[in-house]
Amino acid sequence: MRHLTLAASIAVLAFAAASSASAEEGMWTFDNFPIARANQTLGTSIDQGFLDQVRLSSVKFGGCSAGIVSGEGLVMTNNHCVATCVANISTQATNYAETGFTPRAREEEVKCPGGTAEVLTGIADVTERMHKAGEGLSGAAFTQARDAEAGRIESEACGDATDKRCQVVSLYRGGQFKLYTYKKYTDIRLAFAPEDRAATFGGDLDNFSFPRFAIDAAFIRLYENDAPARTPTHFAWNASAPVEGTPVFVSGSPGATQRLLTQDQLMTVRDVVLPMDQLIASELRGRMIRYSEEGERQAFEAMDPIVSLENTYKRGLGRMRALTDPAFMATRAAGEADFRQKAGEATFNDLAAIQPAVRELYAPYALLEGGTGIGTTSVAGGSQLFLWARTLVRGAQERAKPSDQRLPEFADSRLSAARTALFAEKPVYPELEQIRMEWWLSKTREWLTVDSPYVRPLLGRESPEQLSARVVSGTKLADPAVRRALWEGGLAAIQASDDPMIQYLLLIQEPTRAIRTEWEEKVQAPTDRGSEALAKARFAAYGDAVYPDATGTLRLTYGKIEGSDVPGQRWGPFTTFAGLWDRATGAPPFDVAPKLLAAKDRIPADTVLDMTVSSDTIGGSSGSPVVNAKGEIVGANFDSTVLSQRNAYGYDRQVNRSVIVTTGAVTAALRDVYGMSGLVAELGVR
Amino acid sequence: MRHLTLAASIAVLAFAAASSASAEEGMWTFDNFPIARANQTLGTSIDQGFLDQVRLSSVKFGGCSAGIVSGEGLVMTNNHCVATCVANISTQATNYAETGFTPRAREEEVKCPGGTAEVLTGIADVTERMHKAGEGLSGAAFTQARDAEAGRIESEACGDATDKRCQVVSLYRGGQFKLYTYKKYTDIRLAFAPEDRAATFGGDLDNFSFPRFAIDAAFIRLYENDAPARTPTHFAWNASAPVEGTPVFVSGSPGATQRLLTQDQLMTVRDVVLPMDQLIASELRGRMIRYSEEGERQAFEAMDPIVSLENTYKRGLGRMRALTDPAFMATRAAGEADFRQKAGEATFNDLAAIQPAVRELYAPYALLEGGTGIGTTSVAGGSQLFLWARTLVRGAQERAKPSDQRLPEFADSRLSAARTALFAEKPVYPELEQIRMEWWLSKTREWLTVDSPYVRPLLGRESPEQLSARVVSGTKLADPAVRRALWEGGLAAIQASDDPMIQYLLLIQEPTRAIRTEWEEKVQAPTDRGSEALAKARFAAYGDAVYPDATGTLRLTYGKIEGSDVPGQRWGPFTTFAGLWDRATGAPPFDVAPKLLAAKDRIPADTVLDMTVSSDTIGGSSGSPVVNAKGEIVGANFDSTVLSQRNAYGYDRQVNRSVIVTTGAVTAALRDVYGMSGLVAELGVR
Repeated sequence: MRHLTLAASIAVLAFAAASSASAEEGMWTFDNFPIARANQTLGTSIDQGFLDQVRLSSVKFGGCSAGIVSGEGLVMTNNHCVATCVANISTQATNYAETGFTPRAREEEVKCPGGTAEVLTGIADVTERMHKAGEGLSGAAFTQARDAEAGRIESEACGDATDKRCQVVSLYRGGQFKLYTYKKYTDIRLAFAPEDRAATFGGDLDNFSFPRFAIDAAFIRLYENDAPARTPTHFAWNASAPVEGTPVFVSGSPGATQRLLTQDQLMTVRDVVLPMDQLIASELRGRMIRYSEEGERQAFEAMDPIVSLENTYKRGLGRMRALTDPAFMATRAAGEADFRQKAGEATFNDLAAIQPAVRELYAPYALLEGGTGIGTTSVAGGSQLFLWARTLVRGAQERAKPSDQRLPEFADSRLSAARTALFAEKPVYPELEQIRMEWWLSKTREWLTVDSPYVRPLLGRESPEQLSARVVSGTKLADPAVRRALWEGGLAAIQASDDPMIQYLLLIQEPTRAIRTEWEEKVQAPTDRGSEALAKARFAAYGDAVYPDATGTLRLTYGKIEGSDVPGQRWGPFTTFAGLWDRATGAPPFDVAPKLLAAKDRIPADTVLDMTVSSDTIGGSSGSPVVNAKGEIVGANFDSTVLSQRNAYGYDRQVNRSVIVTTGAVTAALRDVYGMSGLVAELGVR
Repeated sequence: MRHLTLAASIAVLAFAAASSASAEEGMWTFDNFPIARANQTLGTSIDQGFLDQVRLSSVKFGGCSAGIVSGEGLVMTNNHCVATCVANISTQATNYAETGFTPRAREEEVKCPGGTAEVLTGIADVTERMHKAGEGLSGAAFTQARDAEAGRIESEACGDATDKRCQVVSLYRGGQFKLYTYKKYTDIRLAFAPEDRAATFGGDLDNFSFPRFAIDAAFIRLYENDAPARTPTHFAWNASAPVEGTPVFVSGSPGATQRLLTQDQLMTVRDVVLPMDQLIASELRGRMIRYSEEGERQAFEAMDPIVSLENTYKRGLGRMRALTDPAFMATRAAGEADFRQKAGEATFNDLAAIQPAVRELYAPYALLEGGTGIGTTSVAGGSQLFLWARTLVRGAQERAKPSDQRLPEFADSRLSAARTALFAEKPVYPELEQIRMEWWLSKTREWLTVDSPYVRPLLGRESPEQLSARVVSGTKLADPAVRRALWEGGLAAIQASDDPMIQYLLLIQEPTRAIRTEWEEKVQAPTDRGSEALAKARFAAYGDAVYPDATGTLRLTYGKIEGSDVPGQRWGPFTTFAGLWDRATGAPPFDVAPKLLAAKDRIPADTVLDMTVSSDTIGGSSGSPVVNAKGEIVGANFDSTVLSQRNAYGYDRQVNRSVIVTTGAVTAALRDVYGMSGLVAELGVR
């Protein structure tokens, strides 16, 4: 079927939310990349060998992307992708965010707590098995049957292997299911990070904007058996000055897009999901900012959480603006109208009918369970102690059942990931944890109302302030040994525990599991079924000249080095170090990092620092290797723009720009600023 | 023309956003109250004498409403209307919010700093003069000519009288202009306030909800010549148990509604105004909450600001929900469709064409100037020091010009109000002021972007943290004598001042005045002209069986004591003290105030505490006397519900409910809890 309807559909539609892709559009899977069309559009001649080499050199690193750049496991990603690692291995006295992390030898490379990295080694179609598993079922039974089948497929393929991971991936919102097999690394060490300010110059204010002056790059190294991993397939380093118009390919794991959502579904996101997510995040931001002003310790503790929160928040703002932009939404509606005409209105009715339930259940489900897939609100404000306790309590309860009857995150095939997260040795800051818990309980009570049946068991007769203080101050879960003992002790150990956080999680299992079941029953299952029907209609209308929504799995996109020329976004594609010196005021966040400033005279002022490309990326693409048509790495994707956030809902060629830190800038940092001669040699820089 | 088209239009439309009013709908002016229709709907027989008596017993008290309840100037309003007064006359050591304010004799009544109260004594039509003043003009010239004419009319009517105020009021969004004349009181003393928790039981969580258990009432007294004012016209006190279905009238000064806005205008509010207002307010709330947790002093300082902020924020949430409620918006659109058919589409085009400018300019105008009339964002986060400095700097600059060439707030007829606000002797808390300024500068930079021409002059090379700390710590404006000297010294004194806040305000006059002019030119003037045309079309279509949007001026509404029976709002009309004791958990905000708790056995448990009525009210109606058909006061309006916030945009008979504290509950508080025997006698309670 491939490409049958391609020419026709490209001619018809310049904008392709729900239909087929326009030139340079698309976060394509590696088994359905439009090689011919990309070559035609870009004037390149890539082939299947290029795709294989790029795929095997690409790395999924936690929620980020990365690229292998040497034969000895060296990997480049963004500094903001290692920021939490840097925070975790720092103390207030030895703060690598301030100084940079610059080991002079491999022995000084330090393990990132809980870090994992994966390389995609195989893709197999399992659509038929997955569709069959759900046949004739509805509601929670449908969801559970499919989750169980996915777990079985994963276990069959990967067994107990510790260096592999198998994942059943839903593509086209259930239109296809693929089994992805990864080579997995669990010993990831930090090999280089610049001073934080060198990577974050301009802070939140310059985030999601351009011109940009940030060396947002860092290096990690993959280890196996306590030695650097052998990685014969890797990108060659090309640090030559970039040229406007050059074709580029960006290979990474974009997190999530909602392009295949119907307009009805999108109105729910606009009216309900984004407003709650953003409003409560804004309050947490306020609490954390004030906390960070209370002293140097507080500033140190809150730094990474605030950056992370502000990044998510600013992205959400961009999305709110996209969904309330009359012109953008009119174009998207026109795209859907074309599809409606081809597929028939009836195909859309089921998804429309679910929306009142989504509107009603989003707040309780997001607040009590998190992980809705459509919003950013997470349970307990991301309190690490709470989340560990939840893994321990649920893990114990679930492991007492057969694998195919468990919550899917505790299926046999996924226990290894749960353990890795649980046993990670990282610092915990009780005051921050308490701020998160208090804020979460307070916002949950506020949004669901004090008389809600969801809220009463959550708080009992305590206030959010009292409860959060009690459980955070009393828990011993900050100690990894305590967590390990509770995990290994199973349900008996959990039930016998007098840890107040464990007891609290036991107490709230009933209401939180109930809302999860209700969501599966009324929202998730009917949405999955409706989306599957829509996917079939879409294949029928447009063939597979469509690409699936991003799902946090490896994709390849293509485009050119190019500036922007639309209202609110007019600039050429490059910034230089000269621009950085010009923009600096000395007042944070516009202060140049000390070591970088000291190297000013050693870096040619016209060295290109950052650049923009037209490739189609989104959050999760951070750290993606940017590759030329010869397969050489020329930069790392690290950002896009506020206006580009519409990208979540539809591709807009005029607006969509990704922001890249160039290999030239990274080379200058390694060589001229931080004296990383070992890495420079390893990269083969002359 | 009055009532000519009444019967027909009632029959046609149940919902009347843009057209004519349905039964019990409407915040009517006293010179156009539908007496016959109210009597017919309610089965009452009120007449013009009733209206006059109610009007002359009603008081506008700052941003609140109130009612005269004795011949000696005693006035009942809400406790939340005196909360800022209570905070201003309290110290951390003598905190009347904690203890209640319970003077045993009139000599102990204490002046509320900056307090003013007004009784509406006359209404005259000045439509022709105002329309003529703007004829043939457009843009800022149009706005300025009308402002000047309003100032002239006010000065001609009130001269230099200190006990009168004259105000030209725009009704029907410029369809009519009326000259309102008030008897004005500037010596307002606090006569009673309960313990704050007695008035705010349930805090923000129970705010805008029902069932409700709050004695949100307080008493002030009007003084003249240092003695209680004589007020022979006043409401008789009726504390008997209320009866479901009883007709009631609510007389007060509702702040602002947007019912006459077109759907196009409302989309701007939904997409741009509310999101920014709410998101940034939420962050300020977070900063203040964390500040209040830093110590007892901080908690004391932040209490009133947080309550005030949370109230505005929760109201905004209700409004966001209304504008994203598909059913409500469909009904409103249908109302407009009827009007469009009658008036012709062309009438709506001008207002539609302005919306891109509103969307673009709302953020800079609201942040740099405040007072947009369509949102709640105020300049400098409401920093008192900043606002005083602005009055001083602009007042000096403007007073150097003839009255009719000044910014309207500095016309001769309005200088007295400016002075009253400026010379008020109230405490200032520097840390809180700095939090407000820092937040404001930070959000302004974030929303307008760091490279905005509006932002650069605001910050120079300083960060928000640096600038706010510098100007707040250095200013002497907290001292009333300093403010008075600077006001009286005029422009020379201002220009010679080395006060950093004064210097800062001088510095930013150019950019802030520029955005104000731009807003007047591109938004305010064309909106006023377009709205005037729409008003004419509306009168032509529906006669004057329509009422104007609320404008902070005196209105009368009617309805019945009634519960609610719609989804999310099902309850009978009454709560009792028994319900209060039941709801108390002991944990704030569900702790009963100590003195109230101690009186538990003295208050019959079945005494009605609060009740709901169907009358049409909105923010600003707080404290409104609720009156029976005999003109006796039976309660004070103090709230509505979250769902009722749709009221801002359209009347919904099924949903709209106002929450009232009953005179029975107030009597019990005065007599049985706080021992206010003097007031009890003055009210004539047997």
